[in-house]
Amino acid sequence: MKLLSALVGVVLLLSAVALGVAAQTSQPQPYKVVFDLTSSDPLDQQAVLRWINEVKAVNPKTETEVVMYGRGLDLIIAGKTTRAADVAKAINDLHANFRVCAIAMKNQQVDKSQLLPNVEIVPDGIGEIVAKQRAGWGYIKVGH
Amino acid sequence: MKLLSALVGVVLLLSAVALGVAAQTSQPQPYKVVFDLTSSDPLDQQAVLRWINEVKAVNPKTETEVVMYGRGLDLIIAGKTTRAADVAKAINDLHANFRVCAIAMKNQQVDKSQLLPNVEIVPDGIGEIVAKQRAGWGYIKVGH
Amino acid sequence: MKLLSALVGVVLLLSAVALGVAAQTSQPQPYKVVFDLTSSDPLDQQAVLRWINEVKAVNPKTETEVVMYGRGLDLIIAGKTTRAADVAKAINDLHANFRVCAIAMKNQQVDKSQLLPNVEIVPDGIGEIVAKQRAGWGYIKVGH
Repeated sequence: MKLLSALVGVVLLLSAVALGVAAQTSQPQPYKVVFDLTSSDPLDQQAVLRWINEVKAVNPKTETEVVMYGRGLDLIIAGKTTRAADVAKAINDLHANFRVCAIAMKNQQVDKSQLLPNVEIVPDGIGEIVAKQRAGWGYIKVGH
Repeated sequence: MKLLSALVGVVLLLSAVALGVAAQTSQPQPYKVVFDLTSSDPLDQQAVLRWINEVKAVNPKTETEVVMYGRGLDLIIAGKTTRAADVAKAINDLHANFRVCAIAMKNQQVDKSQLLPNVEIVPDGIGEIVAKQRAGWGYIKVGH
Repeated sequence: MKLLSALVGVVLLLSAVALGVAAQTSQPQPYKVVFDLTSSDPLDQQAVLRWINEVKAVNPKTETEVVMYGRGLDLIIAGKTTRAADVAKAINDLHANFRVCAIAMKNQQVDKSQLLPNVEIVPDGIGEIVAKQRAGWGYIKVGH
């Protein structure tokens, strides 16, 4: 009888969790999304910056992060990027995270001093993306 | 003792859930997959249409959805697409969902009347993809 | 009272699970990641092979798998690939899985005998990727 009560409790709890998940997936609820940028194509750079603006306009509580490795680094290297102002706006006004892979920086001999302001360094860009996915963030590969 | 019984109940319940998940991941069980299309490349358009056919052939209960934003819109604009018949077949015969981002439509000045029949509009294409991921759908970025 | 005890037990159990998940997402914990390769671009082939090396260097317990379909097959067809030695190293030394889609092989008239050694065949490449995602593996689309 106690076991039955306990199981009823568990089922009620799990149902509440399920309802919570359902509520989170109905738009325009806020969400969390990580963008995977390995391209230096201006169209892809422009696209990810536009998407951050657009999803924040849908719901300002939506959280965004851009992880850059491979050719994606070009977006956040001062003197190389053509989008410094847009990146600054995304970070400062829209609270987007821009995180660059330390391994890619080393491969491409990019020093911390060359990064745009407030770009963060993560030890392993792929690991960062996988961790975000496991934590329930959506994943979008930037490309066209 | 009652707590012990309760915990045993919880463990049994979670085990049952885990077994259910394991069963779902063994092929050729049906699955759910959302395709992210931001490309107007004919090879990518052709690929996603072929993949829908192929995964439905593996198991007709598999559910597919294509979310289009950015340059992906070209696939479902009448007069612009070269794949209208394939899209119609995917929607009508294979029960695939084709969903286009309202923000991208506005950006590109595409009106509802220009869409192929039975293409649905979602308010936020990225939000749609993230919601599907959170609901347990697999995610495939279309590209090559 | 028993129900309360049971619920406390459930909450403690779920907290332990949550802590376990949190521990798994902090770097440099090992992780599992599946790479989706549909490109025959030498830069993409080179990138995925380099990434396997790099994430294994961060933590040798990290598990990697490359699923190839579409144009991705070129990487593992003997006589066509330019990366046979790197693929062999990834499989033999780094214990990466290389899995190719049987549907794509049939479409492209590729026979089992043409594959590089130890490349595995899966019935449905997209199904393989979706199954991995459902099993908690991270997903990375290879592209640039």
